[in-house]
Amino acid sequence: MSTLQLYDTTLRDGSQQEGMGLTVDEKLAVARHLDALGVGFIEGGWPGAVPRDTEFFRRAPDELVLQNARLVAFGATRRPDVAVVADPQVRALLLSGAPVITLVGKSHVGHVQRALRTTLAENLAMIASTVRHLVHAGRRVFLDAEHYFDGYRLNPEYALEVVGAAAEAGAEAVVLCDTNGGSLPDEVAATVADTLAATGADLGIHCHDDTGCAVANTMAAVGAGARHVQGTAHGYGERCGNADLFTLIGNLALKQGHPVLTPGQLARLADTGRAITEITGVPARPAAPYVGGSAFTHKAGLHASALRVDPGLYQHIDPDRVGNAMRTLVSDMGGRSSVELKARELGYDVAAGSGEVARAAARVKELEGEGYSFESADASFELLLREELAPGLCRPPFDVESWQVSVAGGRAATRTQDTEATVRLRIDDVALRATGHGNGPVNALDRALHEALDPFFPQLARLELVDYRVRVLTGETGSDARARVLIGFRDGERRWGTVGVDRNTVTASWRALLDAVHYVLLDDVRAGAPRAAALAD
Amino acid sequence: MSTLQLYDTTLRDGSQQEGMGLTVDEKLAVARHLDALGVGFIEGGWPGAVPRDTEFFRRAPDELVLQNARLVAFGATRRPDVAVVADPQVRALLLSGAPVITLVGKSHVGHVQRALRTTLAENLAMIASTVRHLVHAGRRVFLDAEHYFDGYRLNPEYALEVVGAAAEAGAEAVVLCDTNGGSLPDEVAATVADTLAATGADLGIHCHDDTGCAVANTMAAVGAGARHVQGTAHGYGERCGNADLFTLIGNLALKQGHPVLTPGQLARLADTGRAITEITGVPARPAAPYVGGSAFTHKAGLHASALRVDPGLYQHIDPDRVGNAMRTLVSDMGGRSSVELKARELGYDVAAGSGEVARAAARVKELEGEGYSFESADASFELLLREELAPGLCRPPFDVESWQVSVAGGRAATRTQDTEATVRLRIDDVALRATGHGNGPVNALDRALHEALDPFFPQLARLELVDYRVRVLTGETGSDARARVLIGFRDGERRWGTVGVDRNTVTASWRALLDAVHYVLLDDVRAGAPRAAALAD
Repeated sequence: MSTLQLYDTTLRDGSQQEGMGLTVDEKLAVARHLDALGVGFIEGGWPGAVPRDTEFFRRAPDELVLQNARLVAFGATRRPDVAVVADPQVRALLLSGAPVITLVGKSHVGHVQRALRTTLAENLAMIASTVRHLVHAGRRVFLDAEHYFDGYRLNPEYALEVVGAAAEAGAEAVVLCDTNGGSLPDEVAATVADTLAATGADLGIHCHDDTGCAVANTMAAVGAGARHVQGTAHGYGERCGNADLFTLIGNLALKQGHPVLTPGQLARLADTGRAITEITGVPARPAAPYVGGSAFTHKAGLHASALRVDPGLYQHIDPDRVGNAMRTLVSDMGGRSSVELKARELGYDVAAGSGEVARAAARVKELEGEGYSFESADASFELLLREELAPGLCRPPFDVESWQVSVAGGRAATRTQDTEATVRLRIDDVALRATGHGNGPVNALDRALHEALDPFFPQLARLELVDYRVRVLTGETGSDARARVLIGFRDGERRWGTVGVDRNTVTASWRALLDAVHYVLLDDVRAGAPRAAALAD
Repeated sequence: MSTLQLYDTTLRDGSQQEGMGLTVDEKLAVARHLDALGVGFIEGGWPGAVPRDTEFFRRAPDELVLQNARLVAFGATRRPDVAVVADPQVRALLLSGAPVITLVGKSHVGHVQRALRTTLAENLAMIASTVRHLVHAGRRVFLDAEHYFDGYRLNPEYALEVVGAAAEAGAEAVVLCDTNGGSLPDEVAATVADTLAATGADLGIHCHDDTGCAVANTMAAVGAGARHVQGTAHGYGERCGNADLFTLIGNLALKQGHPVLTPGQLARLADTGRAITEITGVPARPAAPYVGGSAFTHKAGLHASALRVDPGLYQHIDPDRVGNAMRTLVSDMGGRSSVELKARELGYDVAAGSGEVARAAARVKELEGEGYSFESADASFELLLREELAPGLCRPPFDVESWQVSVAGGRAATRTQDTEATVRLRIDDVALRATGHGNGPVNALDRALHEALDPFFPQLARLELVDYRVRVLTGETGSDARARVLIGFRDGERRWGTVGVDRNTVTASWRALLDAVHYVLLDDVRAGAPRAAALAD
């Protein structure tokens, strides 16, 4: 191995993440994104042990056309005191058809004796015979040496014997696993260096984040000579998670010059992260390095002022290189500089220190005092800004008369009816009444609005609600609590959000929905299209 | 400095976190928790620059009785070409009354010239004169050397001059800041070692997580001789966040034996983390090392089997030491072992491989297929388990006839009425009808249930809804989408959750609410209290 191998285990070890339960369709979709990114190996699961994974490998040949990656099946060495050919779990690995197989084997004497309940010699035989069997069957084989660092600390001789047995039997690399995630970088570097010197085997590294050092431990192992790097999308995984493959890619490529991806592939990193999050439904940290929504986001007033001079002063890399972007947060901490910077980011040519900027900053501050937050609500901020830039010209081309929502249910076994919402609107002198049904109050109100307005404003048809979040803001007393609703929309390719605040969650949602409609209609209004023309459309 | 200093900047640098906007009351509450934990320094904010922070320092002497920590005011060195006594920002630092002041100073020639727009010599004079002025006024002073690692890479001589100037002027420690967060551990270790050798100054370290190495970089700096460690609760901070002080505490204390906290203080770590999350409203990562809700949580079937043998085999430390606990997740990936382990965790004496466990595992699998998830819904799982252990004995002592909710609103300016919910229940032959008002459908239904049932089952009065989450589960087609609602409750000191799934969000919520009521009434039912007795209560 001359260059580094990138090996993803999102679909197996990452699926141990709390809250993650991927269907076969979702696993196939995640694999396609990882392949398109340029990852070399994609571990798909444990065929024979997990029914969904067996199904995944059955469907993969037809439904997964890989451009860059090899598909890997994960499994265990044969059971103690059983011939490898007689072990159904090993047979299932071959039957999966995967060209590459990663076997987990014990390298910690305590685990061999207490969890596996066999002898140290039999464990070595299990590893050697299983690796040899699969290699003879024409598969490339990796060995995951489980609990390697804890095992090496306790009994280095035995740990080295495991590495030697696997390499001698034909394993392409022996992957040293910090299974409990308790190691620190200096120890990892020393253990990898010692193991490499003692065995000469090609080594890999697989880390968990229980000391917050999974990425650093992986980098330390690479520094000490490991050439095969395992991780998961967003660091998904059991307990504190696995090493974050996206962070590793950013560090290896941009900080150390390892050619793990082409520049074009690297520029897909943030989009890949977002796509996988949508599939798994398990949100990534906004603060995730390189790919997170906040990774290049600035709020501090001090920074916002300096960013106007030179963005490079406050960013460790150019976010374009990983397909991410700089964002400025509008907040009372940032003040006028933030509002000015954000306005320019949105394409408005505002003058520094102008009255419009000052008034918009004051209005932001006032609304934040009421519980609003514009950090995730670009569209609501833009409406506010336009109102200051051109007062009165941003009125929506319709008025709201009233709205109502109702939902009812019966005995647990009875099927409930959908929620029904009714809205009464007015466009000039025309009264409109529309009803929408949905799977909850916000969904029903959204549909009623579309029902009423789409015939007059066809551009609204592409407006789609894609995310909905509520936060209860506790005031001085419980009865004073307000709800802040953030709604995410898709409008063709663009995504943006709006915010509404009220004591009532449904009313807050209604406000955020109205902002979204106004926002889509804004271009129309700005272009000077009169209301009558819109009506005649 | 013979031992390590722990320095928290949650209230200043951590507040740059996207979504965080702490009130003065909340800042005071966070400071109390950090002090009780045993942190040595608490940076409260920037008095004079941020109005809320000025107010914080005004109120702190009366409202903040610190047992362990010193309060720190943060500010900048004086402006260029202005006498230090004439700089209002510096005066505000003294007026804050804080016994310790941390000054930020530039150490990167590019930032001096382009952001600060002054000469390299004047920047050194600004640092020296401001430090000296504050030290003469009787304050302990730290200097945050901003962009130190980037600056050192570009022009090490000037960076070292900054450290020397601050130390000579009386700064107690010079804190080397990786402000853009782009460094890796090896470079940090080398730079700290070089700086220590060249200047002999007492050094601190302040890292950001843009390479996912904030904790490792901090550990590397400590390894190279830094004795003052900065971080934030949960790694809160701008962009990718700051070094996570809780992870650092765990690593320094439990992995390296630094006596940064007493064992008793250390055992408060997880509770401190939870308390601060509740105050900030910005959720911590469940996967956060040591303190996260998932940090010692196991899902894998392989692990669940071995955990029955010896929990130490799959945990890097005993979670009791940091006040956290092991949890098992019930999931079809874990199968019967997980169900059995979870049942025992809940106090049920189930037999390994028993029919009850097998049936409960099958039922879990079936419901998970419909979109249920029991990982965050202990109470719903326990109801399911009891139904298998004692079929028919867990029926709630009331029946549901029907329920309905309605909410309405008018023109944007009109005050909307509360949501109104009506429930119709039956206890034996007694029909009950109750109405509840709330700030949304779930809240109104919750109150209507209390209104109807509390008179008959007084133990329900202590049941309080504290968290509410909705996830939309997308099926094969959009119209097939289901909503999974997770509701968190407090029942006296205990916290637990229930789950409901339905196409309709409100119906899913109703199911989760009913589970909560059943769960509270369960002890009553199990004790054999007849329905009539409950009615006569």
